[in-house]
Amino acid sequence: MDAPHAVVLFSGGLDSATALALAREQGFICHALSVEYGQRHAAELAAARRLAGALGACEHRLMRVDLAGIGGSALTDLARPVPDTPTSGIPVTYVPARNTILLSLALAWAEVLRARDIFVGVNVLDSSGYPDCRPEFIAAFESLAALATKAGVEGAGVRLHAPLIRLTKAEIIREGLRLNVDYAQTVSCYQADAQGRACGRCDSCRLRRAGFLAAGVTDPTRYQGLQS
Amino acid sequence: MDAPHAVVLFSGGLDSATALALAREQGFICHALSVEYGQRHAAELAAARRLAGALGACEHRLMRVDLAGIGGSALTDLARPVPDTPTSGIPVTYVPARNTILLSLALAWAEVLRARDIFVGVNVLDSSGYPDCRPEFIAAFESLAALATKAGVEGAGVRLHAPLIRLTKAEIIREGLRLNVDYAQTVSCYQADAQGRACGRCDSCRLRRAGFLAAGVTDPTRYQGLQS
Repeated sequence: MDAPHAVVLFSGGLDSATALALAREQGFICHALSVEYGQRHAAELAAARRLAGALGACEHRLMRVDLAGIGGSALTDLARPVPDTPTSGIPVTYVPARNTILLSLALAWAEVLRARDIFVGVNVLDSSGYPDCRPEFIAAFESLAALATKAGVEGAGVRLHAPLIRLTKAEIIREGLRLNVDYAQTVSCYQADAQGRACGRCDSCRLRRAGFLAAGVTDPTRYQGLQS
Repeated sequence: MDAPHAVVLFSGGLDSATALALAREQGFICHALSVEYGQRHAAELAAARRLAGALGACEHRLMRVDLAGIGGSALTDLARPVPDTPTSGIPVTYVPARNTILLSLALAWAEVLRARDIFVGVNVLDSSGYPDCRPEFIAAFESLAALATKAGVEGAGVRLHAPLIRLTKAEIIREGLRLNVDYAQTVSCYQADAQGRACGRCDSCRLRRAGFLAAGVTDPTRYQGLQS
């Protein structure tokens, strides 16, 4: 039997790089999808381009949708600073409906490819508390997908895999290292510079740094202001 | 109490023009959203631009997402002809996951606007049999939206209105005429020319023409090859 195909949402960050490596380990032929939605940290897309092949994707596609035009998030509105300290509740880096949009684009591409499987690197434990990273959101999207497409109606269905969803950041990192993911090449920072170097202060940097510490491995992240 | 705001998905076609008119009648301040997704009938977008203000929208936004790049539909792939005769099953004009994508963009904009209401002009009776025009799809998307967004989690929720979903094309047309929708300005044809004139042969033209006939009113559509 031929290996199954999967679409893997791939931002170029630590989590989605690990999700891609896990999808490959499970035997999927992986079509990596990055989305340029107007995020200030466009350096993650450059990382995605560099990494997709190294992680074994058979192809890498970039789709564009302009969410900066509507604003509503510190990640897409340059007038709203990214916080340097933790905040309570859902932070201003939340992008309205982002994962719904990303998954709907992945669903479209999967249907064209006749792929039944979609991978997404969301996780709920060491995350910023975004509503669209929770297991109940993932389950609801999978239910929607079965009704939304011709493939779904004709019985092929869609399986939405979120293999990291209940892992800590340290566990994610250990999984990735086991699969030889080169985390030095990944960009998680919300305000990475053009070279992909991290600020070290934003929520995403804090979670990532704490993950390497908890995993007991050296943090390979290239930080701004340091020689790299 | 201030009038509530709504995002109205507005393609420039007959159905969404009627949905916009109904949203206005219900007292909503309407933000019209059109999406350029690589559809061959880009003339519908020109119609949307002309009509949004006439139908009482307070603003009109065009978002772009390139679905032509992935293909998979006669509407986005110029190498696949639009059928001139009815076909069995879901036709090749089906665009993979289109309404999931359109609704996810509407959901994002609604959250930024703090609007709780989204209108979409889908209908299931006189339609081409697309899976993402069915009531069960609309209900599933509304359930997803409650989990997907900060507004949903914080209790504001989202109401997804599909006021045409169980109407025949003739009933839709009668509703629109009651609300003074100028259907001559709307473009439904899948292969309208640059002037917005309809082919008269595609599935969308057939449904529309039959609707005017069943409603007992003159079809104001401008057809190709006729003086207009």
